[in-house]
Amino acid sequence: MNDFVFQNTTKVYFGKDQLKNLGTELKNYGRRVLLVYGGGSIKKIGLYDKVLKEISSAGLECFELSGVEPNPRHTTVNRGAEICKQKKIDVLLAVGGGSTIDCTKAIAAAAYYDGDAWDLVKGTASVVNALPIVTVLTLAATGSEMDCGGVISNMQTHEKLAILSPLLQPKASFLNPENTYSVSKFQTACGSVDILSHVFDSYYFTMQPKMDFIDRVMTDLIKTVVKYAPIALETPDNYEARANLMWASSWALNGFVAAGIDQDVSCHMMEHELSAFYDITHGLGLAILTPRWLKYVLDENTAPQIKKFGVDVFGTDPSLSDMGGANAAIDALSDFFFHTLGLKSTLSELGIDDSNFPIMAQKACNGGTLHGFKPLTPKDVEAIYRMCL
Amino acid sequence: MNDFVFQNTTKVYFGKDQLKNLGTELKNYGRRVLLVYGGGSIKKIGLYDKVLKEISSAGLECFELSGVEPNPRHTTVNRGAEICKQKKIDVLLAVGGGSTIDCTKAIAAAAYYDGDAWDLVKGTASVVNALPIVTVLTLAATGSEMDCGGVISNMQTHEKLAILSPLLQPKASFLNPENTYSVSKFQTACGSVDILSHVFDSYYFTMQPKMDFIDRVMTDLIKTVVKYAPIALETPDNYEARANLMWASSWALNGFVAAGIDQDVSCHMMEHELSAFYDITHGLGLAILTPRWLKYVLDENTAPQIKKFGVDVFGTDPSLSDMGGANAAIDALSDFFFHTLGLKSTLSELGIDDSNFPIMAQKACNGGTLHGFKPLTPKDVEAIYRMCL
Repeated sequence: MNDFVFQNTTKVYFGKDQLKNLGTELKNYGRRVLLVYGGGSIKKIGLYDKVLKEISSAGLECFELSGVEPNPRHTTVNRGAEICKQKKIDVLLAVGGGSTIDCTKAIAAAAYYDGDAWDLVKGTASVVNALPIVTVLTLAATGSEMDCGGVISNMQTHEKLAILSPLLQPKASFLNPENTYSVSKFQTACGSVDILSHVFDSYYFTMQPKMDFIDRVMTDLIKTVVKYAPIALETPDNYEARANLMWASSWALNGFVAAGIDQDVSCHMMEHELSAFYDITHGLGLAILTPRWLKYVLDENTAPQIKKFGVDVFGTDPSLSDMGGANAAIDALSDFFFHTLGLKSTLSELGIDDSNFPIMAQKACNGGTLHGFKPLTPKDVEAIYRMCL
Repeated sequence: MNDFVFQNTTKVYFGKDQLKNLGTELKNYGRRVLLVYGGGSIKKIGLYDKVLKEISSAGLECFELSGVEPNPRHTTVNRGAEICKQKKIDVLLAVGGGSTIDCTKAIAAAAYYDGDAWDLVKGTASVVNALPIVTVLTLAATGSEMDCGGVISNMQTHEKLAILSPLLQPKASFLNPENTYSVSKFQTACGSVDILSHVFDSYYFTMQPKMDFIDRVMTDLIKTVVKYAPIALETPDNYEARANLMWASSWALNGFVAAGIDQDVSCHMMEHELSAFYDITHGLGLAILTPRWLKYVLDENTAPQIKKFGVDVFGTDPSLSDMGGANAAIDALSDFFFHTLGLKSTLSELGIDDSNFPIMAQKACNGGTLHGFKPLTPKDVEAIYRMCL
């Protein structure tokens, strides 16, 4: 295993009765708050009013940026940064899911940058400072509430890229599982796939040597999602299920499971092209891609780990051969995604054809090879996309 | 499960080649370093020289406090605080195991206090400020490298008490598993028991409702120690074993597994009296106490959890009755402590008789009841001590 550095400074307030601490947290960073949110679902569930009440009780001044898109656009980041500059914002408050939090992170950096925020995402300019960020999470999925990265889309260039900096780590995040009761079955399923995919991509499926303790926790994370996602679909207000999914979302991508491993993100890179070109929901794209990716990379080297996954998580037959066990594992995963979680299983069902596959494959590989469980060239990626039709 | 707040800000440098970052870390906090260490084992393994070289290369000025005891004394804390005041120390560097780090934490607080450091431990004075702390860990055991508490002994009053404050959280900790290669079999065994006991005490054995994901991680921490402690005894320079034990020690007591649970520490409280009166090694006291404690609290309410522990960790027969399974689990744990780890199994073997049991039992309960898996009165605690004879 490699040497690693682990640090995660975010203060997490977890549970039903924590929002009363929001004002105190925000006041640590100033008096002028920019509240960032999406399409208004936070108003439907009453969270918007509760948040405003806490801000007002704390004597803070509140400004708003609403309408953050599910795949947040760099244009929205620019709009947010402009408000920060004009209104001299002290602290950003993201209330929503991963998209809202990601957008808020980019705004935090762009508030200190004079040009187009896309420069910071693209990496042609560096993040040198950022406004402090507090989040109130409403969707168990991306882990953005406890990490220092965000993903921003540029619809003009069909690019979906990550912005990463320790400066973007949320100072505090409020995780109330009740705030996810109203999440639709579809979004609950997609969020669950996203959590699983973070574990798969960044660590679980790798040829690199792992620390046994961390490998076990990884399996715990996967089993937690596999157990509780169906319960949350069935009974959306099951606190135990929502709590386990929420805490799992944070721990799948807060640095713990990736410690000591060179992080590879094959599926995420392939999916980013799908949602950059077709604006589909990230978790849905991951669900369609992952079993095909595993089939494609299956060989005598990768088979033992895929087989072990099936045995540990889905209870597939341990007496099968490596290849047989690996195929059984992939089948079990497909069954979980496409039957238990009820997700669509092909790109064709989403109206996507193969016309952009060559260029998407090139972009996913960023002009080179996609590293991961098995290295993938653009030709490989294109083949995987075709398996998803 | 209860609401909880989780935050752990310590930056962990884990691995073989991380000490090169020590100077940079220390320089974040100033130029005058107090190096705190124990009996000199760090000199034998060459770590002392490596640390001094890093301090010197960074252009920092180094002062020293050596001779920290295995159960660190408040008198040593006073000595360290005096050096801090006289030499205008900027940052403390603890190089050693939990005792050295605990002592350093108390010094960090006492450096800002004019009276006897024992006041801060006893709680008659509050920790209002503390010097920054960096640690280099040499023993997988207490978790002090990644938490905000320490345990200090007063040999005059036979008291062993905890000092706790967020101000005492190490800024950075250096965890190189190689630095534990020279730890004796006995200390490796005792450290492993301490790790297990943190999990048992603070969370695993409780009647409180738990979050499933955290419960799984707890089981994995236990299984990691049960797997790797014997390997480390057999082959002291097995990197994989030492790495797993070291990272497990941090995660057993850094707040993660205790989240959402009212932390109870029955065994630790009972053991603290043993080492306060007889200065025995903490992990040894815990090993002798834990199986007797489980036997004593075993009833129809606690049996299912104890049985589950045996099945999950030691593979005991799941078809046994709750009571039968619980007894099998306790037997398996005793076997692990007293045969696999080779620890002494009774207090008599340590030359301890029952003469102080009544007063120790009173002190362990602090004038009331010891809360935990099952509430314990001084009479109960005395009975448990007698079971250990």
